[in-house]
Amino acid sequence: MASNKVLNFDNLNPNVKTMEYAVRGPLVIRAVDIEKELAQGAKYPFKTVIKANIGDAHAMGQKPITFIRQVLACVTYPKLLESSEFPEDVKEHARVILGGCGGKSAGAYSQSTGVDIIRKHIAEYIERRDGGIKSEPEDILISGGASESIRNVLKLFVNRTSNKQVGVMVPIPQYPLYSASIEEFNLGQVGYFLNEENKWALDVSELERSYEEAKNKYDIKVIVVINPGNPTGQVLTKKNIEEIIKFAHKHHLFIMADEVYQDNVYAEGSEFHSFKKILVSLGEPYSNLELASFHSVSKGYMGECGMRGGYVELVNMDPEVYVNFKKMISAKLCSTVLGQAVMDTVTNPPKKGDPSYDLWLQEKTAVLKSLKERAKLVEQAYNAIDGVTCNPVQGAMYAFPRVHLPAKAIEKAKSLGQEPDFFYAMQLLESTGVCIVPGSGFGQKPGTYHFRTTILPPTDVMKDMVDRYTNFHNKFMKEYS
Amino acid sequence: MASNKVLNFDNLNPNVKTMEYAVRGPLVIRAVDIEKELAQGAKYPFKTVIKANIGDAHAMGQKPITFIRQVLACVTYPKLLESSEFPEDVKEHARVILGGCGGKSAGAYSQSTGVDIIRKHIAEYIERRDGGIKSEPEDILISGGASESIRNVLKLFVNRTSNKQVGVMVPIPQYPLYSASIEEFNLGQVGYFLNEENKWALDVSELERSYEEAKNKYDIKVIVVINPGNPTGQVLTKKNIEEIIKFAHKHHLFIMADEVYQDNVYAEGSEFHSFKKILVSLGEPYSNLELASFHSVSKGYMGECGMRGGYVELVNMDPEVYVNFKKMISAKLCSTVLGQAVMDTVTNPPKKGDPSYDLWLQEKTAVLKSLKERAKLVEQAYNAIDGVTCNPVQGAMYAFPRVHLPAKAIEKAKSLGQEPDFFYAMQLLESTGVCIVPGSGFGQKPGTYHFRTTILPPTDVMKDMVDRYTNFHNKFMKEYS
Repeated sequence: MASNKVLNFDNLNPNVKTMEYAVRGPLVIRAVDIEKELAQGAKYPFKTVIKANIGDAHAMGQKPITFIRQVLACVTYPKLLESSEFPEDVKEHARVILGGCGGKSAGAYSQSTGVDIIRKHIAEYIERRDGGIKSEPEDILISGGASESIRNVLKLFVNRTSNKQVGVMVPIPQYPLYSASIEEFNLGQVGYFLNEENKWALDVSELERSYEEAKNKYDIKVIVVINPGNPTGQVLTKKNIEEIIKFAHKHHLFIMADEVYQDNVYAEGSEFHSFKKILVSLGEPYSNLELASFHSVSKGYMGECGMRGGYVELVNMDPEVYVNFKKMISAKLCSTVLGQAVMDTVTNPPKKGDPSYDLWLQEKTAVLKSLKERAKLVEQAYNAIDGVTCNPVQGAMYAFPRVHLPAKAIEKAKSLGQEPDFFYAMQLLESTGVCIVPGSGFGQKPGTYHFRTTILPPTDVMKDMVDRYTNFHNKFMKEYS
Repeated sequence: MASNKVLNFDNLNPNVKTMEYAVRGPLVIRAVDIEKELAQGAKYPFKTVIKANIGDAHAMGQKPITFIRQVLACVTYPKLLESSEFPEDVKEHARVILGGCGGKSAGAYSQSTGVDIIRKHIAEYIERRDGGIKSEPEDILISGGASESIRNVLKLFVNRTSNKQVGVMVPIPQYPLYSASIEEFNLGQVGYFLNEENKWALDVSELERSYEEAKNKYDIKVIVVINPGNPTGQVLTKKNIEEIIKFAHKHHLFIMADEVYQDNVYAEGSEFHSFKKILVSLGEPYSNLELASFHSVSKGYMGECGMRGGYVELVNMDPEVYVNFKKMISAKLCSTVLGQAVMDTVTNPPKKGDPSYDLWLQEKTAVLKSLKERAKLVEQAYNAIDGVTCNPVQGAMYAFPRVHLPAKAIEKAKSLGQEPDFFYAMQLLESTGVCIVPGSGFGQKPGTYHFRTTILPPTDVMKDMVDRYTNFHNKFMKEYS
């Protein structure tokens, strides 16, 4: 269709045309429309839409942590520092944050790298987390959510003048921020498959296979690891991380460690190990590898997605590159100071003995305990359904069950020009109001079909969701058997 | 210098290497360092650094508007909705915003386009501003400051597969977000000079000259207009805007109207006219032109820079392009919900008769009145100095005085490999602590030298700054005469 617009589909940025971001793709757009229609009285065979498409804890009813929101209220409206309604340690935290702000106001720009005192608290948090391994505030850059930092780091590798595209190794299945940004920046995606038969483990032999297959096509420079995994929920062992680091060293790769789910580990025997810690522990030459580690306030026990707080710690980055990195982000001025303040409350929480400590610990523990229960519940529920198998949710916030679709359903989908799991997910949405994301949006082994669902709906909603899903699935399997 | 890093200066994204962003460039980095040294007791011939480099009102001591911060406090900590300390209309505003948030929490992601009720309030604000001309919430996209929207729109024009770079017309002097983003995105900058001899007016004959000169080199598709002007402070007349729109029509250009200073108009006889209003008023064919208009919470009377609230209104955008635009921003999830809430308070302020109205109006009026006085003060102060001339500051937040540098100073700078105005500004900083931005960071006619200073320092600081500046300038002129 021709358009006489200055900017039209024909001359639109081709990378924008081709990029996809399934977590907010056509299914979710349709789900939002159905919700609006329901609110206006439209009739559907269900009364509510259950959006299990995105790791958005508060939208699913999780309550904010009191300490975080009290600090934030004092930072936004400092008159509350005089109120007797707020604990003294809350006020002190707020005062320290405001002391780092221009004019003692969260309305002033911060440095592009973030508020200095918050960078310091982040570095101290990392040191505690990693058993005392040194972290420098100067290596921390605060951003509006981890996504922004991830995109910034990827952008450094764009090189229009080189003969080959720069290749970025990403897990398959992966979080589509990576595929979307790689596409937008015209980089090359080099996928390595996670091992579904072994609880989505990351096998180094598969890294080698993937590297060998793509090395002639791309100038491979980066490996992305998501740990705990999204959408797959696996938690990497220490030994596994060591192998990955050795692989990165062997092939001279820059490591991007997406560690935003570092607080979300549920499985017995599983434990979070940061790439930074293992890298340093291995000693030279591994301790010299370049690493970017990402964290966020959107996940964990706080789930403050809308606040947009995140950071990257840059380890062993070339100093000249770092200067240019800071120059690049300076054109965006700074990330939200209130989002930075939330990151401060996460990395510098109340200490034992502080007035806020008990409530903070109680709220944090309750959220993590409940997530752990739901992780188990979801795994069991999906495994109980004929034609569905589901790996344990060791960590993060998602299950990624496999659906063994009948050949007839696959044919039907293909006749409609749709991915089979997209077809399945859209039918699920239209007939039950349950919104999940088809596995094709994350990538999967050819011929296998999955979907991602969050474990965030509260237990009663979750049970309702599993009921709706089971009914739909059984009918679907019968129809296409 | 060779580096064995995976990512090094040699293979770093070349557009990141070449981009510059003067407002946070080397001078500002040095100013921040000097501030830290002073705090640690270092001796300089001054006791404080005065940072007049950036439009950061709160950092300069401007107090937040009470209504804005009260609403924000209630949104962040909804328990305050029960407090008798907050006016009823503040609570109602907060309730409406929370009602638009997932799970009634600012910690939930919003849609990538923004919270629906806030988009509606923005559209209503635009309608009031433009005398009733229709604005659709669906055409509004909320972002983390206006910068993000500006960069998003520019990104749509990137086209690696076309033979010619896409050209973007920008005023010279311009706000360096444009030059930096154009460079980062590998677009082509087509500068048109503002007329310093006529109060930085925008002459259409100069647009034609610039277009003709660049049209063979670039595929020119966009014209950027900043009104009120940054760094130049001019306010465009209605007739002038009509001419620009006709120019855009003649050459089939997409108009980007940077209108973030729409509340900052000081000069007698000057008035803000939005491009949207004039475009629609002109009727067909002009009313069909594609336009993106940007606004922000960082400027105006509120100066909430650190909050990162902004929006773009897209007028007449191709529907297919718009779908892809929304897909592109979805990978970034959403902008800060609290930044969006600040935008809500700006576009949906208290109404006459509301409990908060009187204080809100009083605070708003006081800020704008004081800015108006300082605009005049700055103009007069710089014009009173030998070898400096300064156009009236009709609007925005900056003066852009011209310094008539002696030939010897220019030679000296060039012998050091520096821009003459950079050399001058660095000397000023080192000897007086006054931090301004050299005109070369914004662009200027060859052979002319300027600097940008904000009008934001409070009157006493401003007088101190002008004193320090005058002493330095006179000494400098003598030294190089």
